[in-house]
Amino acid sequence: MLLTNATLATMHQDTPYGLIENGAILVKGQAIAWIGSIDNVPDEAESHERIDLEGRLVTPGLIDCHTHIVHGGNRANEFEMRLNGASYEEVARAGGGIVSTVKATRSASETELLDGALKRIDALISEGVTTVEIKSGYGLDLETELKMLRVARSIESHREITVKTSFLGAHAVPAEYKGNADTYIDEVCIPALETAHAEGLVDAVDGFCENIAFSPDQIRRVFEKAKSLGIRVKLHAEQLSNLGGAQLAAEFGALSADHLEYANDDDAAAMAQSGSVAVILPGAYYTLRETQAPPIAVFRTHNVPMALATDCNPGSSPLASLLLTMNMACTLFRMTPEESLAGITRNAAMALNLDDAGIIKTGAKADLAIWDIRQPAELSYRIGFNPLYKRMFGGKL
Amino acid sequence: MLLTNATLATMHQDTPYGLIENGAILVKGQAIAWIGSIDNVPDEAESHERIDLEGRLVTPGLIDCHTHIVHGGNRANEFEMRLNGASYEEVARAGGGIVSTVKATRSASETELLDGALKRIDALISEGVTTVEIKSGYGLDLETELKMLRVARSIESHREITVKTSFLGAHAVPAEYKGNADTYIDEVCIPALETAHAEGLVDAVDGFCENIAFSPDQIRRVFEKAKSLGIRVKLHAEQLSNLGGAQLAAEFGALSADHLEYANDDDAAAMAQSGSVAVILPGAYYTLRETQAPPIAVFRTHNVPMALATDCNPGSSPLASLLLTMNMACTLFRMTPEESLAGITRNAAMALNLDDAGIIKTGAKADLAIWDIRQPAELSYRIGFNPLYKRMFGGKL
Ligand SMILES: [Zn+2]
Ligand SMILES: [Zn+2]
Repeated sequence: MLLTNATLATMHQDTPYGLIENGAILVKGQAIAWIGSIDNVPDEAESHERIDLEGRLVTPGLIDCHTHIVHGGNRANEFEMRLNGASYEEVARAGGGIVSTVKATRSASETELLDGALKRIDALISEGVTTVEIKSGYGLDLETELKMLRVARSIESHREITVKTSFLGAHAVPAEYKGNADTYIDEVCIPALETAHAEGLVDAVDGFCENIAFSPDQIRRVFEKAKSLGIRVKLHAEQLSNLGGAQLAAEFGALSADHLEYANDDDAAAMAQSGSVAVILPGAYYTLRETQAPPIAVFRTHNVPMALATDCNPGSSPLASLLLTMNMACTLFRMTPEESLAGITRNAAMALNLDDAGIIKTGAKADLAIWDIRQPAELSYRIGFNPLYKRMFGGKL
Repeated sequence: MLLTNATLATMHQDTPYGLIENGAILVKGQAIAWIGSIDNVPDEAESHERIDLEGRLVTPGLIDCHTHIVHGGNRANEFEMRLNGASYEEVARAGGGIVSTVKATRSASETELLDGALKRIDALISEGVTTVEIKSGYGLDLETELKMLRVARSIESHREITVKTSFLGAHAVPAEYKGNADTYIDEVCIPALETAHAEGLVDAVDGFCENIAFSPDQIRRVFEKAKSLGIRVKLHAEQLSNLGGAQLAAEFGALSADHLEYANDDDAAAMAQSGSVAVILPGAYYTLRETQAPPIAVFRTHNVPMALATDCNPGSSPLASLLLTMNMACTLFRMTPEESLAGITRNAAMALNLDDAGIIKTGAKADLAIWDIRQPAELSYRIGFNPLYKRMFGGKL
């Protein structure tokens, strides 16, 4: 198939957006066989079906590299209680907080978890998403952590999308281990990781390093286990305070450190050294009404690649739109439209260790988003507006 | 048609959301003939087609009561320039700002304006919107102001939606009258209002009372003309400073005063007295990164009805989602989910002087939104997610 008359935002780094005007893409099977100017289309393309895109913008298929999209229940009740003036204590007494999601996730069947997740996955797909990362972390027991990861994996057989899983046993200390985080790590988290890995359910290992979650020493033990199993790591770090999570992640050659509102110059330097991506999550910042923005300028100075993601989760970021995430990154954090597009394509692919996605190049998987606009900046500029024209997944429109 | 097994958020004020569980709605022709519990369905309903909604939530069709959805061009360039570090001067030199929208709107054909507007209208419709207000104000000359209003009116013949128009000649002083706002009011704004009214294009008269736009005295002259023509008024007031616009609007019995970040207790008291609605516009607050939120608590104290709208415009609020507007009102302004739903139904209808919309009641127009959720709070809680199941406009699904 030859897509012609396209404005290509290839996301190569040599020019802004790697832009090619009057471009064409030759797709063979599931892969991109050639890209370039329509003036240079190779002879072999003659025999392929031509699709005239009438100047429309083509970007890589979008990648949401940080989600908790598989979970039970929702927290609309709690959202409403708080806005009606309930205190955190009252919300907690009513069973609110992450506890309620853990409870709902444990009691949900795989079918129920899948049905809920697919609604949110469909919202992402409608905006041109072709790859999504999904974490466990609302089970906090062996059985439910595995259930979440199985459901996440199964999404690939229900929708035309690539799923990468992250094991997030070190997300929160469950009620039954309250005050015994170390015991939880030993008795549940590490054994669950071993089992999940043995079942082929783990693409990466993640953790939440924060005063309300796990200490750097506890995370280190999880990362040591990941290392011994040959699994790459990533970390929720420096979201609400600076505990040293980003440098710990860098020490383990992490794919990414995520959130990073409280990261500093030394953290950025360490991440640059280790090649870790900074995953920026404006949905959580917005929802939690934080005031300290992540140090975008510092990441720029140190050439730390920045990705963007929805953090789609029922508590701190019930967000299911990558386009809105781009606008938030620009509006709230002053990222540029080009940085925000790189954040959900090239750099998101890097955060997931994918080298055949997030960029339009020969040999890459033919995952593309085709937009009814001409200028890449329009993707960030508009709010709550979806100009997707068509999506291509693995060579199929 | 009998809709059964519905969770009805009627938006009557006697109970939260005017909620009726296990509800039913009898629709005859374009109107609601009966609503109530499924246990009390009247005999006459037996002969009507039954549609089982399986417990789904039904709300009034949504109303976006403040938009500038008809306009030429877009300002993505300017958005990108600013994020790449350009100063306001550089943006202005490059032709940015409202000037660029005026230029694009003047040079656009009616077909071009319509095509652009319909994309945004379709985004609203996809979220269950059944009524939209549309302002002129990017023409700032007789011909283009009329063109905008004609395009706005024509939308009703292209989409199943009700359009209410507002004449906003007093939106900005055009370049050709720079420094001569009074002359602009005399020579362009008032004659254009008279002509537009004579052509039946004006449902309400609006203005922008601000240091960067028109003074209260200038707005007063426009309002006097509106009054003499028998047209109700509304006003962009106290957005960036307090100039007394809200009290001026109240003096003229305005349908609404809009924005209101800098409104105070006296303003709210005057608005309560005149029955004017406070139209809250979080999209502009968010986009402009304002820090002073409108005084929600003061409006509550004075029982000023609060509406919510997208303010959909190419500069300060390129927002095309009422659901996101609800979430922003809750997250940024701490409005409750019930207030936010009333803001895009019952109170939005009041801001447009409609008494047969915005509430589910016998005799009202059968404009409904049916949602694939159970709890009204979910509409505000989620971000960038659209749970619309079906929309009914004038009795047609
Ligand atoms: Zn997360
Ligand atoms: Zn406005």
